[in-house]
Amino acid sequence: MHRGYDDPHCAIARSLEILGDGWTLMILREAFLGTRRFADFERHLRISKNVLSKRLAHLVDEGVFTKVDAGQFGARYEYRLTSKGKDLLTVFTALRQWGDRWVFGEEREPMLVHDRQTGSPILPVRIRRADGTPIPSRDLELRPGPGASDAQLERWHASQDD
Amino acid sequence: MHRGYDDPHCAIARSLEILGDGWTLMILREAFLGTRRFADFERHLRISKNVLSKRLAHLVDEGVFTKVDAGQFGARYEYRLTSKGKDLLTVFTALRQWGDRWVFGEEREPMLVHDRQTGSPILPVRIRRADGTPIPSRDLELRPGPGASDAQLERWHASQDD
Repeated sequence: MHRGYDDPHCAIARSLEILGDGWTLMILREAFLGTRRFADFERHLRISKNVLSKRLAHLVDEGVFTKVDAGQFGARYEYRLTSKGKDLLTVFTALRQWGDRWVFGEEREPMLVHDRQTGSPILPVRIRRADGTPIPSRDLELRPGPGASDAQLERWHASQDD
Repeated sequence: MHRGYDDPHCAIARSLEILGDGWTLMILREAFLGTRRFADFERHLRISKNVLSKRLAHLVDEGVFTKVDAGQFGARYEYRLTSKGKDLLTVFTALRQWGDRWVFGEEREPMLVHDRQTGSPILPVRIRRADGTPIPSRDLELRPGPGASDAQLERWHASQDD
């Protein structure tokens, strides 16, 4: 049974192939703060040109950023989040809130996400049932989907026999 | 202004110090699937003993796993997720759903998260307003919290002048 970090049939493994490097995640965090230019990523993250350049190229290849010529004379590129990239905000927000809860703790959060319309902090990101109510983890069950591999089906059936 | 991957005042950076390695995240994914023993992590992940041992020790140090002597004769340890570890399920579920949407696509999801009570798939994890409705990203605003550093306050004030 084939499994591992390169498992082509696991959404977590495949997502981590795109994102699974600390610097890559820090570059994305910076992009969510509004940074678009190479020099600004470099300055804010204190990252080497070489590492930054490789990570940005990888994220462009994966369709997370698009590289846009935003200069009048073609000398100024911007890295802009695509829809695929912007859609990671939920993951980042859930991660930020986890860090706030478990690393810093209540009343010691460095930054908080607010709702511009109301000025209030947003709710903690939660996993919810189809009716919108939060679902406890004991009620969550991972089942094979339409794209499941033989290995995933085999492991799932084995777990049902326990 | 100090910033960077080791930024001690950023919830994302501090979370990534705990989790920011692909193997670490794959070990956690495996733990959410129910794996607890060293040999089972090794077998399912096809990871070297050396790498696995270091990552597990790090996660025990960080309070994500607890190492429990579960053997009658003291020779069988289990790595069990703590409350801090279990609380990462939201991040993992959001990441799994992102991979399902952008790597596999609808009707090609390898595994789906279901609600045991209803048998239905869960909703996509969303960022929500205080009243529970989904909030579009343009309405999200990061503001300094009670634990903000001088550098975070400075950057925030600078961004308000834009």
